[in-house]
Amino acid sequence: MDITNTNPGSNRRLRGGIVGGGRGAFIGAVHRIAVELDGQAQVVAGAMSSTAETARTSAEDWFLSRWYDDFETMAQQEAAREDGIDFVMIVTPNHLHAKAAKAFLRAGIHVMCEKPLAFTVEEAEELAAVARESRVLFGLTHTYTGYPAVREARQMVLDDELGEIRKVLVEYQQDWLMDAVEEDPEAKQAQWRVDPECAGISCCVGDIGSHAANLVEFVTGRNIASICADLTAFVPGRLLDDDANMLLRLQGGGKGTLTCSQVACGEENNLSLRVYGSKGGLEWHQQEPNTLIFKPAGQPWQYLRTSVSLKSVAAAEVTRTPGGHPEGYLEAFANLYRLFLADVRRFIDGTPPVGGYPSIDEGVHGMRFIARAVESSNANSSWVEV
Amino acid sequence: MDITNTNPGSNRRLRGGIVGGGRGAFIGAVHRIAVELDGQAQVVAGAMSSTAETARTSAEDWFLSRWYDDFETMAQQEAAREDGIDFVMIVTPNHLHAKAAKAFLRAGIHVMCEKPLAFTVEEAEELAAVARESRVLFGLTHTYTGYPAVREARQMVLDDELGEIRKVLVEYQQDWLMDAVEEDPEAKQAQWRVDPECAGISCCVGDIGSHAANLVEFVTGRNIASICADLTAFVPGRLLDDDANMLLRLQGGGKGTLTCSQVACGEENNLSLRVYGSKGGLEWHQQEPNTLIFKPAGQPWQYLRTSVSLKSVAAAEVTRTPGGHPEGYLEAFANLYRLFLADVRRFIDGTPPVGGYPSIDEGVHGMRFIARAVESSNANSSWVEV
Amino acid sequence: MDITNTNPGSNRRLRGGIVGGGRGAFIGAVHRIAVELDGQAQVVAGAMSSTAETARTSAEDWFLSRWYDDFETMAQQEAAREDGIDFVMIVTPNHLHAKAAKAFLRAGIHVMCEKPLAFTVEEAEELAAVARESRVLFGLTHTYTGYPAVREARQMVLDDELGEIRKVLVEYQQDWLMDAVEEDPEAKQAQWRVDPECAGISCCVGDIGSHAANLVEFVTGRNIASICADLTAFVPGRLLDDDANMLLRLQGGGKGTLTCSQVACGEENNLSLRVYGSKGGLEWHQQEPNTLIFKPAGQPWQYLRTSVSLKSVAAAEVTRTPGGHPEGYLEAFANLYRLFLADVRRFIDGTPPVGGYPSIDEGVHGMRFIARAVESSNANSSWVEV
Amino acid sequence: MDITNTNPGSNRRLRGGIVGGGRGAFIGAVHRIAVELDGQAQVVAGAMSSTAETARTSAEDWFLSRWYDDFETMAQQEAAREDGIDFVMIVTPNHLHAKAAKAFLRAGIHVMCEKPLAFTVEEAEELAAVARESRVLFGLTHTYTGYPAVREARQMVLDDELGEIRKVLVEYQQDWLMDAVEEDPEAKQAQWRVDPECAGISCCVGDIGSHAANLVEFVTGRNIASICADLTAFVPGRLLDDDANMLLRLQGGGKGTLTCSQVACGEENNLSLRVYGSKGGLEWHQQEPNTLIFKPAGQPWQYLRTSVSLKSVAAAEVTRTPGGHPEGYLEAFANLYRLFLADVRRFIDGTPPVGGYPSIDEGVHGMRFIARAVESSNANSSWVEV
Repeated sequence: MDITNTNPGSNRRLRGGIVGGGRGAFIGAVHRIAVELDGQAQVVAGAMSSTAETARTSAEDWFLSRWYDDFETMAQQEAAREDGIDFVMIVTPNHLHAKAAKAFLRAGIHVMCEKPLAFTVEEAEELAAVARESRVLFGLTHTYTGYPAVREARQMVLDDELGEIRKVLVEYQQDWLMDAVEEDPEAKQAQWRVDPECAGISCCVGDIGSHAANLVEFVTGRNIASICADLTAFVPGRLLDDDANMLLRLQGGGKGTLTCSQVACGEENNLSLRVYGSKGGLEWHQQEPNTLIFKPAGQPWQYLRTSVSLKSVAAAEVTRTPGGHPEGYLEAFANLYRLFLADVRRFIDGTPPVGGYPSIDEGVHGMRFIARAVESSNANSSWVEV
Repeated sequence: MDITNTNPGSNRRLRGGIVGGGRGAFIGAVHRIAVELDGQAQVVAGAMSSTAETARTSAEDWFLSRWYDDFETMAQQEAAREDGIDFVMIVTPNHLHAKAAKAFLRAGIHVMCEKPLAFTVEEAEELAAVARESRVLFGLTHTYTGYPAVREARQMVLDDELGEIRKVLVEYQQDWLMDAVEEDPEAKQAQWRVDPECAGISCCVGDIGSHAANLVEFVTGRNIASICADLTAFVPGRLLDDDANMLLRLQGGGKGTLTCSQVACGEENNLSLRVYGSKGGLEWHQQEPNTLIFKPAGQPWQYLRTSVSLKSVAAAEVTRTPGGHPEGYLEAFANLYRLFLADVRRFIDGTPPVGGYPSIDEGVHGMRFIARAVESSNANSSWVEV
Repeated sequence: MDITNTNPGSNRRLRGGIVGGGRGAFIGAVHRIAVELDGQAQVVAGAMSSTAETARTSAEDWFLSRWYDDFETMAQQEAAREDGIDFVMIVTPNHLHAKAAKAFLRAGIHVMCEKPLAFTVEEAEELAAVARESRVLFGLTHTYTGYPAVREARQMVLDDELGEIRKVLVEYQQDWLMDAVEEDPEAKQAQWRVDPECAGISCCVGDIGSHAANLVEFVTGRNIASICADLTAFVPGRLLDDDANMLLRLQGGGKGTLTCSQVACGEENNLSLRVYGSKGGLEWHQQEPNTLIFKPAGQPWQYLRTSVSLKSVAAAEVTRTPGGHPEGYLEAFANLYRLFLADVRRFIDGTPPVGGYPSIDEGVHGMRFIARAVESSNANSSWVEV
Repeated sequence: MDITNTNPGSNRRLRGGIVGGGRGAFIGAVHRIAVELDGQAQVVAGAMSSTAETARTSAEDWFLSRWYDDFETMAQQEAAREDGIDFVMIVTPNHLHAKAAKAFLRAGIHVMCEKPLAFTVEEAEELAAVARESRVLFGLTHTYTGYPAVREARQMVLDDELGEIRKVLVEYQQDWLMDAVEEDPEAKQAQWRVDPECAGISCCVGDIGSHAANLVEFVTGRNIASICADLTAFVPGRLLDDDANMLLRLQGGGKGTLTCSQVACGEENNLSLRVYGSKGGLEWHQQEPNTLIFKPAGQPWQYLRTSVSLKSVAAAEVTRTPGGHPEGYLEAFANLYRLFLADVRRFIDGTPPVGGYPSIDEGVHGMRFIARAVESSNANSSWVEV
């Protein structure tokens, strides 16, 4: 069945576009693998770089049918084609997210956007207004909520298996910025991450602390109400934080800590969560994502395992392999797209969307979290409401 | 760039076919994901079931362009098309592997085949002869050799980081056959696995013991020379083994044990390997595949990690994500296809193949291993040469 | 060689006394095992309970030669005997520590005291003055510093293997107070812990947070400079905290978090420490105490193991068994006594003490830490200097 | 209460003697710590070396009241004293176990003996006859059965929580003999272990394989019925095995493997056991002894923990610390003595012994296991009955 199939219905491979992700970028390839993993969609068009040559060669690497030098043109032309893209993936540096997303929303093309949603809270709120007005779908790739074990954890909280939530401990530790790697001219990733012009007001909290906060909120089903933050730039000369520690208070009474770092020597991508309630506890580590530790009060710890002992529908619908065949980061990413593409099909076929992937509201809230963390830290770690 | 592109060269998405893997089969979807993961190929045609209706609906599920009721027809017609498939994936039950493979080899279509290679040693040897004659490519999906950490382990042995190999301990434990699940009419997987007509002379050794043996041989670079085996069918009424224990002697002097089971209560897919040499030891667990434990003599254990501390080119060329973004079973599978597809491109472009994926020779050797294990067990666990 | 041996020198088993630890108490037996483990001392006298009957029966259980109804009498009479005790162990509830310790210090008998040192900062400072004046030995059982791996960690920091200390993450989680167990009339332990009259101004921070703080300070060799604390009593009706979260700033620039809880469902005695520096990281878990994880920059994690790969003299002098023969909590406790008894021998023989066990200064500092945590929490988590 | 107390009853510290364990020996100190740990006994006399000077200095190190140059004299003189020893601990090299044990048995003194019981099967059987005749108590220190988690495991099998036992996997890996360390004149331990004159017919199987076999039999409650063994001396010039692999068949139908090594590079003292039944599985690792993994069919793995979730009386009676305060090797050792000393008290007080520690029958069986392993290996790994 041809990818250019122009049947009115959704019974075909969906067509995707990409903005950003040209040669040298890591996250572009991840989005492509993720969106295509289940064979439900194919990326056919892209504006992968603002440099025309890179835009072309990157598109050729991926065997794309069409490429563009700029996303505005892409949005207009794709919207006009009968076999144009159904959705677009935005994977540029942070400062372009909102601009690119708006172009496609206004062209009536569904958007899946990398986090953080925008450059500032204001821009995020404005984008949210545009998205609401556009009436098309908008998703945000808070990847880590895509893991089956994380979805099970959320369901267990919803089912009151933990009781009253008392304590949450979340962390996200890396070490890739522990030295001044941004001084290497080749280190594009590091350069824009530590550059306030591209990354915004925060490096570490913006890039990974926001994932940690989102994970807490997703699993507990309650937002972080207020924070008391201490942000630091440990590497001399750095303008943005590369480390942060926070006290948390959740809506509804739980308390805890959030700690994140890009200078934690020896850590790769250690996102970990513990939740303690009055009836049970949970523990999950992203680096061994197929295990969810459940600690029911007065009983032995249970090691729940993807495909084997996760019980929820929410976990089952994002699981592909039998027990003991480990799934990883790419599958978690693909899970968000699986849910998003199902909504795209529903949209095409005129049925209401179901969701299940992070929404623009979470994106706006995430921007607020970043802004409030910086604010608290600047105010000598005073409590600040999110 | 269209999948029907008929350019003479390989600068396009390659076209794949599939035999077997219809609705209800697990491994078909795995092969599809694996072969398409890197965006280098697309499955376009299939003979996914011997039942015409299932063949059609399975193909439609996958948006295939063409489907067939039988693999003979498929081989001939695809070979005749200008935009026919470049390669085929054989994912039927064991007793059809050789027959299907031969059809495509004779049609000049490259083959990637599920293991075990064939139904008997004789059939395997005959298939190997056909493959040699055909001059096209033949690969075997001994999946577990696709993991970066396993490739690193092999390289470390080659680089003499372990010294003289003294002891190997390999195991593969599952529990999915611990009860008589084959009595459930829906349990197609279980039924053919325990049926001598479909599975051959062994269930447990054939299905998973052979993976364990292959893993030892791949990592140590030396074949199992002789075995002393004790096979058992623990579940009453079962005709084939569901458990086995073996003593091993390697070519070149190392010794060890291989133990496998499908009735090991609580085990999912626990394939684990330890190798001990005169200078160092190695340990790897498939269920946490991104860690390779290295035990250099007189020094602390080192936890080598995918993308971070694996040093070999062999590991690097099959790695997709940065450190701490776990890769799993599907990626390992995709790695074999990555190497196979690179050879398909080389073939198209007239350059010699490079290999790196399991070959038909390993397939024949694997069949011998299974036969010898049964023979030893029947001879009161006498030593038998492989 | 008889325990009543009155040779002037130290070439004999030393004689110990105990205050507190009567039937039903847990920690008394631990002290007895710990002090006697190396065969260097024997407990011969005790004032194990303020109830005469319990004092007698408890002493009989232990085959003590002498028992007393009150510690004042014990101090005086033991000091007067030729074969009197060389040292005393204070294991009462918190509010009696200082009173009992003073009685023995003034009688010229060496003291090993349970933590926290005293009931208030003032009382602690006063006791420190008495101790200084007495010129006899004073030790404090911050048990967890007794583990070989912890001593190695400290030495590694001293040897600059971690570089500049940037981040510390310490936690101490338990769940034994997650319900209102103090309402059970039999639960003596729980009752005094949550009673401000016996425990002081804090339950959780006083009991276990103080261990966590001491561990950070012991390993990093630098004191906690200031804290920003959020203490909570989660169980309704409780007057003292059963949970706390804190931001930390160390003297010399490191930052971090300390979190402790007695309501963390499923946790037993999870004291864990991570330290991240500019050159390396360290990780240690009390529940698996024989492993120290070292994370040198740019290299694989190393699992250092007691007796095998700990390199320091500090670790070696507190190790008893060969590699892989796990040592635990009782041995860690015994290690503090091993060092303390060596000083007692030195004292008897007229040579200067060497130390190595927690001193009264750490005890006073620990009391300040508890007081400042409460103060910060009461001031809406403001930064407070320790 | 004085250790020389000559009350007729048992209400006093019991008096122990030791044969062997002089300066430089590791295991002597372990026995002393173990027997004294609970304050129920004290070692007062010893024949710690066949060299008079070492016998004296070793005894002085331990503050013993009496020492002897030879165990015969010791047995006679201690039996004659009113305040003589109640029991003796035999910790010599293997070839002296039986001789020393007989001397004390004939003197009516209870014996706790290191394993293996004797030098040959014949000597073991003869010793068993002497022990039976003597009517005094005899225990054997198969240490690893002293762990609470191991006792829980045994009880779970007895309670049919595992169902029919199908598969056992036991291993004991070390690396201390991976080089020819016996060539170092200081390496007394290594020298006698590899010397057939002192160690007997086997090094690795005799020293540690026998522990592994005992552990399987203790936990499953069934003996090893037959074995198929492959013993190797990997280090050139060594006369006895330093490695072994075996197939096992248990009485009652279970099968499995036993593998042990003293040349497994990087292993410390890795004794591990897995048992798989028709209803559940168990897993235990001596190096992390406070966790017992339970794998009930169709449910998540449960991590049972010492003091917290071990349910049996058998575990509880050998547990000293609350949850999360790890117990280790010395405590496991002390547990055997705790049970043995309780029997000594019963004996003194005229009540029947209860047991619970390894008996002389297990000792004889263990000797047979060693002999049969060597026999099978010499017969080209034929099945041999134990």
